[in-house]
Amino acid sequence: MRAICPGSFDPVTYGHLDIIDRAHAMFGEVLVAVGRNSAKNYLFDAQERVALLKDALGARDGIEVVVLEGLLVDFSRAHGCGVIVKGVRFAGDFEFELPMAQMNSRLTGIETVLLPATTRWGAVSSTIVREVASYGGDVSEFVPASVNTAIRDRVAQRKEAKS
Amino acid sequence: MRAICPGSFDPVTYGHLDIIDRAHAMFGEVLVAVGRNSAKNYLFDAQERVALLKDALGARDGIEVVVLEGLLVDFSRAHGCGVIVKGVRFAGDFEFELPMAQMNSRLTGIETVLLPATTRWGAVSSTIVREVASYGGDVSEFVPASVNTAIRDRVAQRKEAKS
Amino acid sequence: MRAICPGSFDPVTYGHLDIIDRAHAMFGEVLVAVGRNSAKNYLFDAQERVALLKDALGARDGIEVVVLEGLLVDFSRAHGCGVIVKGVRFAGDFEFELPMAQMNSRLTGIETVLLPATTRWGAVSSTIVREVASYGGDVSEFVPASVNTAIRDRVAQRKEAKS
Amino acid sequence: MRAICPGSFDPVTYGHLDIIDRAHAMFGEVLVAVGRNSAKNYLFDAQERVALLKDALGARDGIEVVVLEGLLVDFSRAHGCGVIVKGVRFAGDFEFELPMAQMNSRLTGIETVLLPATTRWGAVSSTIVREVASYGGDVSEFVPASVNTAIRDRVAQRKEAKS
Amino acid sequence: MRAICPGSFDPVTYGHLDIIDRAHAMFGEVLVAVGRNSAKNYLFDAQERVALLKDALGARDGIEVVVLEGLLVDFSRAHGCGVIVKGVRFAGDFEFELPMAQMNSRLTGIETVLLPATTRWGAVSSTIVREVASYGGDVSEFVPASVNTAIRDRVAQRKEAKS
Amino acid sequence: MRAICPGSFDPVTYGHLDIIDRAHAMFGEVLVAVGRNSAKNYLFDAQERVALLKDALGARDGIEVVVLEGLLVDFSRAHGCGVIVKGVRFAGDFEFELPMAQMNSRLTGIETVLLPATTRWGAVSSTIVREVASYGGDVSEFVPASVNTAIRDRVAQRKEAKS
Repeated sequence: MRAICPGSFDPVTYGHLDIIDRAHAMFGEVLVAVGRNSAKNYLFDAQERVALLKDALGARDGIEVVVLEGLLVDFSRAHGCGVIVKGVRFAGDFEFELPMAQMNSRLTGIETVLLPATTRWGAVSSTIVREVASYGGDVSEFVPASVNTAIRDRVAQRKEAKS
Repeated sequence: MRAICPGSFDPVTYGHLDIIDRAHAMFGEVLVAVGRNSAKNYLFDAQERVALLKDALGARDGIEVVVLEGLLVDFSRAHGCGVIVKGVRFAGDFEFELPMAQMNSRLTGIETVLLPATTRWGAVSSTIVREVASYGGDVSEFVPASVNTAIRDRVAQRKEAKS
Repeated sequence: MRAICPGSFDPVTYGHLDIIDRAHAMFGEVLVAVGRNSAKNYLFDAQERVALLKDALGARDGIEVVVLEGLLVDFSRAHGCGVIVKGVRFAGDFEFELPMAQMNSRLTGIETVLLPATTRWGAVSSTIVREVASYGGDVSEFVPASVNTAIRDRVAQRKEAKS
Repeated sequence: MRAICPGSFDPVTYGHLDIIDRAHAMFGEVLVAVGRNSAKNYLFDAQERVALLKDALGARDGIEVVVLEGLLVDFSRAHGCGVIVKGVRFAGDFEFELPMAQMNSRLTGIETVLLPATTRWGAVSSTIVREVASYGGDVSEFVPASVNTAIRDRVAQRKEAKS
Repeated sequence: MRAICPGSFDPVTYGHLDIIDRAHAMFGEVLVAVGRNSAKNYLFDAQERVALLKDALGARDGIEVVVLEGLLVDFSRAHGCGVIVKGVRFAGDFEFELPMAQMNSRLTGIETVLLPATTRWGAVSSTIVREVASYGGDVSEFVPASVNTAIRDRVAQRKEAKS
Repeated sequence: MRAICPGSFDPVTYGHLDIIDRAHAMFGEVLVAVGRNSAKNYLFDAQERVALLKDALGARDGIEVVVLEGLLVDFSRAHGCGVIVKGVRFAGDFEFELPMAQMNSRLTGIETVLLPATTRWGAVSSTIVREVASYGGDVSEFVPASVNTAIRDRVAQRKEAKS
């Protein structure tokens, strides 16, 4: 069964990579789907987020990275994915995923599996990484080297743009 | 990959059967493992719980029911199971499963996947079923017919034993 | 005692209608109050939300639908409502309602009662309905027919406006 | 509509009295039902708990105190109660009440309303009161005077019995 | 050890003052650091929030109020603060603080201590105070007199500006 | 200010040691108080738990280990402790500590500080350690060497006693 890992990945962290790796080990084939929500203000645009994910994942059989178009359940079906895989770090994460999983199941019968975060990455999120990096903090422990470079460059650009 | 569904199943409910079915659809092979904890006071003993599960599951390829012996991660490995599957109904369930999943992963690297409860069975648990049945309430909506009969008989026996 | 059911209702779902019906059965008279927050970006304006509610509720004795003006506790008092009724689906909902209920009680002594969501509607919210419909998903299981039509029309309008 | 307030009340606290008073103000008639669970080890037996409640509530029209017999939903129906009223202090309380409310509703259609704890009594529970009193702590801020006396006497009796 | 109490304080409430007082009693020296996030729409600007805090705190040895610049952990170190103190009112608050505390500890080893909200202030937050005041509600029970005056003036200004 | 770290410590884990170390770094003097509850069935008795803690902590200035007698707040005052320090790993932990902290504060004004668990030890608890060890699992990653030996011996003894 092919699994889909949807997310914003703005930017991808070691926490995301851990979930993708585990989904890959379990289901063999994984489609990483990068969401694009016009109401959100991303640090990296969808193509940049795809590129950073591809770079971080390297050439691995059975993992593909694409931009998510339209409704997740329709997109999953169109791409032959029978299970949605999401990482959950704490109770609030779970309460966010539960009604979405139940709704998606009722819409097309698609299955959702929740993977408990690995201890080491339980505190890491794109939001915290962006916040820390925006003030010049060192996030190299939490993201791959290429992401670390990209985020420093982007933060520097934005500062210049403001001044 | 073979999945293991551990639990008390005292008795099995439609909520459990839903999780076992979904694990079966996803992983093909499922080992249902009935726990036995000497500190717990079960309504049905381990062999009875196995029998009720077998009856409820019928003859289905790829599903086996056994009594769980020893440490879950060792038992899983000995039976060729690479993933533990648990249902989660609400935040408290998730917080119970999270440290166990993290501990099990650290002990042997075994994976745990959490399946969000189906809407319809979100309120059902063995505990509530036992409680309702112990006062003569009708639990036929929540458990298979054979379990319904068994629980009525057991409750009647216990009442007689007391009087 | 007259009850008030405040909310955004953007749009009304079967989950909301269930809460309103239950409040009606319990308190006899219900005032449904449609909130208007200038910081929010609604799919339907307040008058449209009132109209969809009226259409969904039909002509029922003891239920009135109005736009909420000013502070909820003052509005409640001015309209003779002694109890605020809110539906709660999960722990996060409860933690959102608790301090508001405590604050409202301290401001005017008004009572708040929380109704646990009915199993069937536990996963439904206006937010998820809007999200699914915005990508062309079928929400007819979760909202009345008139809302279903209105939301499809509105989504189509917005797409045209963009292109 | 007559409301039922079920509980252990071992012993009754100002937190319980607050919920009973609010149910009384809202529904006019309240049946306080004292549970008796053979698996629990109570500090006061059911008749003592009823007596302490009656003493604390005084003679108030529309409030009756009884021992709960059998299944809550059957008992409620037999006593003409159409709504179960429970206090909820925090998210864990809510997650305990939610499946019970959903189950009770499915069994007989009875309604459950959850009343958010009043700020002042949010930290008070019978368990904490018993724990504090058992070590000689002063609980007079949290329970009526007669309960305070009864709990001191009971704790003293138990100490004597041990020595 | 000098403690830092970071926050938005938009505006300061009695809940905040309680946390600052307790940090002061425990650690002797407290730096109150007023955050400034360009993405947020504050009711009072950073200098006004500092002024309201200073007014509310009066002249007390060991308490200083400043605007927070840059990354919290760097700012704390630069100002000789070894411990971050935050108030937590409910589970959602805790889940917000936990990953930030873990991240901050990993970045510089700084300690975070969470102080459970005092019963009386558990329902109070700047958000609710702003919401109530914006509709003309009376918040004098929850904020110091000078804040009460300032918030009434600001709300009146904004209404005039709109009309 | 002297801090008190109360707990069961049955047995002490690296998670506990982390909290004690952090309390020591922050407050200078720490009293570790080993609880004894006649209703609990401990793996190690109070004197054994004290001995294992002393062995794990070694000779460190400012840390003392004792058996807790009577009410925590009275014991704290009698031993000159002005602050209770507890570790919290997840929302359920927090909801357990919050009312106890509020109650203790109301009884004697004692302060409680909650320390968020370090990422690495977030999944570790005495309960899980006992459970894993009881089935012969390896807990050496989670407890000091002396505890590891003691728990293996105790589990072996109990098995012999049963056979």
